[in-house]
Amino acid sequence: MKQIVVIGANSAGVSAAIAIRKMDAKAKITLISNEEHLPYSRCGLPYVLSGEIPDFKDLILFPPSYYKMMDFNLKTEVTASSVNSSEKTVHLEMRNGKKETMTYDKLLLTTGAVHFSPPIKGVDKKGVFRLYGITDGKDIRKAMIKARTAVVVGAGYVGLEIAHALNKNNIKTTIIEQHSQILPNMLDTEMADIVVQRLKRRGVTVILDKPVEEILGEKHATAIKVSDSEFEADIVILATGVKPRIELAKKIGIKLGTTGGIKVNPRMKTSLPDIYAAGDCVESSNMITGQPALSQLGTTAERQGKVAGINIAGGYSTFAGILDSTVSTLFGLEIGSTGFTESYAKQVGFKTTSGIVNSKTRAEYYPGGKRITIKLVAEPDIGRVIGGQIVGGEEVTQRLNLISIAIQNRVCVSTLSKADTCYAPSVCSPWEPVVLAAEMVMKKMTGVRLNLTK
Amino acid sequence: MKQIVVIGANSAGVSAAIAIRKMDAKAKITLISNEEHLPYSRCGLPYVLSGEIPDFKDLILFPPSYYKMMDFNLKTEVTASSVNSSEKTVHLEMRNGKKETMTYDKLLLTTGAVHFSPPIKGVDKKGVFRLYGITDGKDIRKAMIKARTAVVVGAGYVGLEIAHALNKNNIKTTIIEQHSQILPNMLDTEMADIVVQRLKRRGVTVILDKPVEEILGEKHATAIKVSDSEFEADIVILATGVKPRIELAKKIGIKLGTTGGIKVNPRMKTSLPDIYAAGDCVESSNMITGQPALSQLGTTAERQGKVAGINIAGGYSTFAGILDSTVSTLFGLEIGSTGFTESYAKQVGFKTTSGIVNSKTRAEYYPGGKRITIKLVAEPDIGRVIGGQIVGGEEVTQRLNLISIAIQNRVCVSTLSKADTCYAPSVCSPWEPVVLAAEMVMKKMTGVRLNLTK
Repeated sequence: MKQIVVIGANSAGVSAAIAIRKMDAKAKITLISNEEHLPYSRCGLPYVLSGEIPDFKDLILFPPSYYKMMDFNLKTEVTASSVNSSEKTVHLEMRNGKKETMTYDKLLLTTGAVHFSPPIKGVDKKGVFRLYGITDGKDIRKAMIKARTAVVVGAGYVGLEIAHALNKNNIKTTIIEQHSQILPNMLDTEMADIVVQRLKRRGVTVILDKPVEEILGEKHATAIKVSDSEFEADIVILATGVKPRIELAKKIGIKLGTTGGIKVNPRMKTSLPDIYAAGDCVESSNMITGQPALSQLGTTAERQGKVAGINIAGGYSTFAGILDSTVSTLFGLEIGSTGFTESYAKQVGFKTTSGIVNSKTRAEYYPGGKRITIKLVAEPDIGRVIGGQIVGGEEVTQRLNLISIAIQNRVCVSTLSKADTCYAPSVCSPWEPVVLAAEMVMKKMTGVRLNLTK
Repeated sequence: MKQIVVIGANSAGVSAAIAIRKMDAKAKITLISNEEHLPYSRCGLPYVLSGEIPDFKDLILFPPSYYKMMDFNLKTEVTASSVNSSEKTVHLEMRNGKKETMTYDKLLLTTGAVHFSPPIKGVDKKGVFRLYGITDGKDIRKAMIKARTAVVVGAGYVGLEIAHALNKNNIKTTIIEQHSQILPNMLDTEMADIVVQRLKRRGVTVILDKPVEEILGEKHATAIKVSDSEFEADIVILATGVKPRIELAKKIGIKLGTTGGIKVNPRMKTSLPDIYAAGDCVESSNMITGQPALSQLGTTAERQGKVAGINIAGGYSTFAGILDSTVSTLFGLEIGSTGFTESYAKQVGFKTTSGIVNSKTRAEYYPGGKRITIKLVAEPDIGRVIGGQIVGGEEVTQRLNLISIAIQNRVCVSTLSKADTCYAPSVCSPWEPVVLAAEMVMKKMTGVRLNLTK
């Protein structure tokens, strides 16, 4: 009977445990969580703050009976303090001070991520929050009740999702981003501008290109200082990104990658025997370049967890890499991207050409259609698609998935422009805008190849 | 100055004319239509009958000013009675009896399709309709005002769209299909059954596996006789399919294909010099097999029209073939397919394996999610995806397009199962059901390859 210990029990850990159980009915599977809650969906946290989901408990993935049925030994409020990889033991510390040592045949690290906190003066004041877990969420929700004003630091999609929640609760919200645009990892500037327009129309103030200098206030935050301006803030939320939680891995002596995540092979095995890792804490590889990359997304965690689980159970599965496909619903828009933005592609050495198409989500004459803008990025040698960004009122997610499939399979714009797409007036336009964007890129390619347009 | 004559002025013809004008500002472009209306979207006709679109005039593609701006010479209510391909002339007959002869440098036939009428006794009675053009639509709408009962003959997607419209107008509707399932070209039986359940719940009677024997009634239809049953019908609508309208092409001496459509090369050129054809009247080729196929869809017509137009204008473009990607919204469901159904794949010699996944369109905990069922069909040698069918409450169309791209690019289920898909609780599940369907097919493949499962 195999002893399997999973340290960290959210998307990656639970996904792995399920995959193991499907292949091995007898394995003894222990899930260690340092949180007090049953495993839950982190991605849903902002939607509870916004009120779209009634309560944090709705995010709980499975009831206790599920863990019983699956014969998972779930230990909450327990920290794995150290691992002895030669003796194959894990040392656990319960919140009540008790200690325990477990042996393992296979160990899986799904330790997740921690906040990356910029060195801002005053971050320890009351009223300053981060959102990673349910406990954070509850603290923020409590603070929101009395708050009239808020500042969100960081305009990545988590920052915007929180701003969306604050705005929905009639809290006057300012977003401060040190980059020159919002969603810098997700969108190129012209696409981000569409979202900014919407944010402004909904009454959110957006401050770009300026770092936060100080969180003002005595013990409690009252405002934020940015160059020579101050913005009132009964609450401040730092959404400045996360980094892999790797203290334990480091302590064990597991190799890290250049990105700071745990280095794993395609089967999610670390540098040490019988130790696997998956989720926010590992380094992935990008599908386009094969280069190391961090992908701290729920989908990646679930996919990697499944791969790790299959291998731990004695099967064979590999993780094929990531494209950072992301989507979010914000202020009545669906916003997302996959692959490289044009600006990032240039950073990593590609020359690029791109096409942007504005269209509607239904036939011109069919009521209720919404605007949709699609940007397709290709490299101009053979026209291989390397990125896509979409902002629209509906039907965005699956178009991104379509572009993701195209990137993964090295599809060129010439082929994409010949796609056989569906049509019904009630759900799309006769000319699929992704196809039109591919055509547009093709038209520009000759120029780029001859160095005429850029 | 090139003289270009386009016979037939709907999706294919107008699409071609636009493509020509984009490349040639001076060409003299004449569009010949035997209808009285400006070019319009046929696909929208059922939605006017249902009331989702207010009026038939909303389907008109462009106002008269557009044709003026584009310098298109649009002649309505004119029939092209014959063509002399050696003299390069077209003989026209106006509805008022006048005749005219035009010369052409390039001729494009976009003559569309005609109803395929089964030999049913009584089809000429009053109250029996077909729906191909606005005139038909107006006749049906008028008849609907007084009708309490209706029978639709044929349960392809046009038949169902009409049934949907009748049902929405509180007309007691029966659908009669001679095949053993509805949507026989689009769905396999188990997927069609989901739609049948919905039809029944909405009060539509579905009679399968029985041909219509006779339309009863004196001068006016009153009922339909099917084996030993009769179904009341104040109106009868024959939605029994269309076939290419090729009388003129035949008269000119243009070669037809084995499917009965006009044979064209990939540039949409017919067998005669300087004569092109596009749309419902031509024979296409299937992307999976390369074999001749009829694809009488609006998207195909527009795409072929564009290719023909570019070539007519002196450019170079090819039509890459079809996958019969189709979608429709019926009775609160989005229903569609792309590529081969499992039953058709078997007919053309493939062995198949498939996976069906039931999922929801949003995260389990996010309110408003709808059911979605996805069937993926692959051939079990290398697992190449050859078909997909989806029935769901939303987010169906772009998933079909994704599968279409996968088929076009010979993507295998192994690759599809590693797709990097997006996730946000508000718009999808963390595990994309298309990906899960690919995984399911993979699991079954080994068995099929060893001949264990079928």
